Amino acid sequence: MSLVKQVMDEVNQVMGLIDESQLASAEQLIQKDKRIFVLGAGRSGLMAKGFAMRLMHIGYTVYAVGETITPSIQAGDVLVAVSGSGKTGSILEVVEKAKADGVKVVAVTSNAESPLGKLGDTTVVVPGATKAGDGVKSIQLLSTLFDQSVHITLDILCLMLSRRDHVSNDTAKATHSNLE
Amino acid sequence: MSLVKQVMDEVNQVMGLIDESQLASAEQLIQKDKRIFVLGAGRSGLMAKGFAMRLMHIGYTVYAVGETITPSIQAGDVLVAVSGSGKTGSILEVVEKAKADGVKVVAVTSNAESPLGKLGDTTVVVPGATKAGDGVKSIQLLSTLFDQSVHITLDILCLMLSRRDHVSNDTAKATHSNLE
Amino acid sequence: MSLVKQVMDEVNQVMGLIDESQLASAEQLIQKDKRIFVLGAGRSGLMAKGFAMRLMHIGYTVYAVGETITPSIQAGDVLVAVSGSGKTGSILEVVEKAKADGVKVVAVTSNAESPLGKLGDTTVVVPGATKAGDGVKSIQLLSTLFDQSVHITLDILCLMLSRRDHVSNDTAKATHSNLE
Amino acid sequence: MSLVKQVMDEVNQVMGLIDESQLASAEQLIQKDKRIFVLGAGRSGLMAKGFAMRLMHIGYTVYAVGETITPSIQAGDVLVAVSGSGKTGSILEVVEKAKADGVKVVAVTSNAESPLGKLGDTTVVVPGATKAGDGVKSIQLLSTLFDQSVHITLDILCLMLSRRDHVSNDTAKATHSNLE
Repeated sequence: MSLVKQVMDEVNQVMGLIDESQLASAEQLIQKDKRIFVLGAGRSGLMAKGFAMRLMHIGYTVYAVGETITPSIQAGDVLVAVSGSGKTGSILEVVEKAKADGVKVVAVTSNAESPLGKLGDTTVVVPGATKAGDGVKSIQLLSTLFDQSVHITLDILCLMLSRRDHVSNDTAKATHSNLE
Repeated sequence: MSLVKQVMDEVNQVMGLIDESQLASAEQLIQKDKRIFVLGAGRSGLMAKGFAMRLMHIGYTVYAVGETITPSIQAGDVLVAVSGSGKTGSILEVVEKAKADGVKVVAVTSNAESPLGKLGDTTVVVPGATKAGDGVKSIQLLSTLFDQSVHITLDILCLMLSRRDHVSNDTAKATHSNLE
Repeated sequence: MSLVKQVMDEVNQVMGLIDESQLASAEQLIQKDKRIFVLGAGRSGLMAKGFAMRLMHIGYTVYAVGETITPSIQAGDVLVAVSGSGKTGSILEVVEKAKADGVKVVAVTSNAESPLGKLGDTTVVVPGATKAGDGVKSIQLLSTLFDQSVHITLDILCLMLSRRDHVSNDTAKATHSNLE
Repeated sequence: MSLVKQVMDEVNQVMGLIDESQLASAEQLIQKDKRIFVLGAGRSGLMAKGFAMRLMHIGYTVYAVGETITPSIQAGDVLVAVSGSGKTGSILEVVEKAKADGVKVVAVTSNAESPLGKLGDTTVVVPGATKAGDGVKSIQLLSTLFDQSVHITLDILCLMLSRRDHVSNDTAKATHSNLE
């Protein structure tokens, strides 16, 4: 079997385990009158940024934690935190602090029973293999399968949001950076 | 049909069109005694960075253009450039300049006939829908389908490289940032 | 003479040549009802980001070109572009495009007669030594003296803005990222 | 007195308090056969990145914590950590972990008695005003005076290193990114 086929079998298996009702709960927390912050380390951080960029395109006020113009997070804000294992120390500290301050948390992790999974006001479980060995088994390195599945899952959430908000492709295009 | 199913049908369709011989050509250009530079704008840039991070994990000398410690690029280096449309101005300028300086180029684009597609010493075609309307049609916004498919495609290239180089998951784990 | 003293002599010399009326012109373009974009390559880019971060602290809507959530730039926006030589290709292209689209440009450069210097609706000249050999001579490497002087100059502009806007240190502190 | 003059009086006052013997100690830790990691949050992080970029130009193997291709830190590496207050939580955790792993730490802070100041194998004290109210008093916002003085101090360290290593301006120029 080709390598492409083997990898896609893994991705399809994980995506078949996504619970769309969890996405619907996340969708309810993400509103245009809220400020959305995204957070993740390593490749999970890149996935979080890809999600933030698309949220910007469809009209949300969104910030990536660690970037230049990210302000202080406050009660009433929403924090989307991504960690495959759900145990990344630097992520958990930010989430715990934010939660104590009255921030709503959308946790995205492979493991609902992990510390991050338990901290989420809403938790989206993406059961791809991670560095920590959770989730669907994979021939790919480290948390590759988790990253791939999180990417697609957060894009599906964007699609749900853009439909709810009646944002067309042309509207999104007009907001897309024109300085490339 | 569920949204997850609809999106996965799109991703499966694009991935079914990936030509593994193009990946094999890219694999030949990426060698441990070369310096690899990655380049992309917007979400393509995030995918390029995810690829660079994994190349670092499996032992390559790799730089993301635009980051702090990225040195000058020189003859003999390899540049992996990602652009859905293959027409992103800022990407094309860097690629043209690098090529003139003797750098080998791996082009990753939805369109083999685009300017970027033609500039590649090797071109990997990932025919997902882009902002410019190329490739497999999609219900998703902008170049989402391209981003998803590029992500998986570059991960497959990493898997090929790690197997060629006999890098185990444990070795990759030891190189993974331990400051998270 | 100690190295600290030699370097400070250079910085004092450059700062003595700053024309505060140019800062006053820049101050007039930067208003709370405008969106401010900052742009720079390499170390100039880091200085531009430091400026953006402080503008955020004192209440401006500001974006760093190239970061995740930076939207398209539009007529009526303000672009602050930093380049020591005033000739950095990637910077000039963005500035020219933005200007053609009706964006106001604050140019920050060592050389008023450079391409960037001429493109500015307002130009702030910081005549520190650059890679291109412009400005006050320096024992320091490359454009170090320009970077140092730009840093202080843009901070002085922030001080002018915070006084004009009656932003106190405590207000700025409340907006400062609390996720560190 | 002009605003430029008032600000420069502050910077000169802080720089007059720099102890060049502390820079000489830092210089001894930074060697070409070591890997250097830099770390800082917010504007301190930008200063750390500016330092890293210049170290790259003069021939060091250097990484900015949090960027794409930064590998795991190991015994024998050197970590340069910048925090005005010396109390930034996310910085302290990384420093403590690294130190426990056998990494040598260069601490850069306004306060020698702060937690970071005490953790340094070598500590460079830059007594500019910070958010926490340490150091020389300032009319400028937050830790602006610290940022300015750290910038110049780390550049002086680069100058010392480039002289020790006999790196000319032309050599540094050849390593500077040519993709701008």
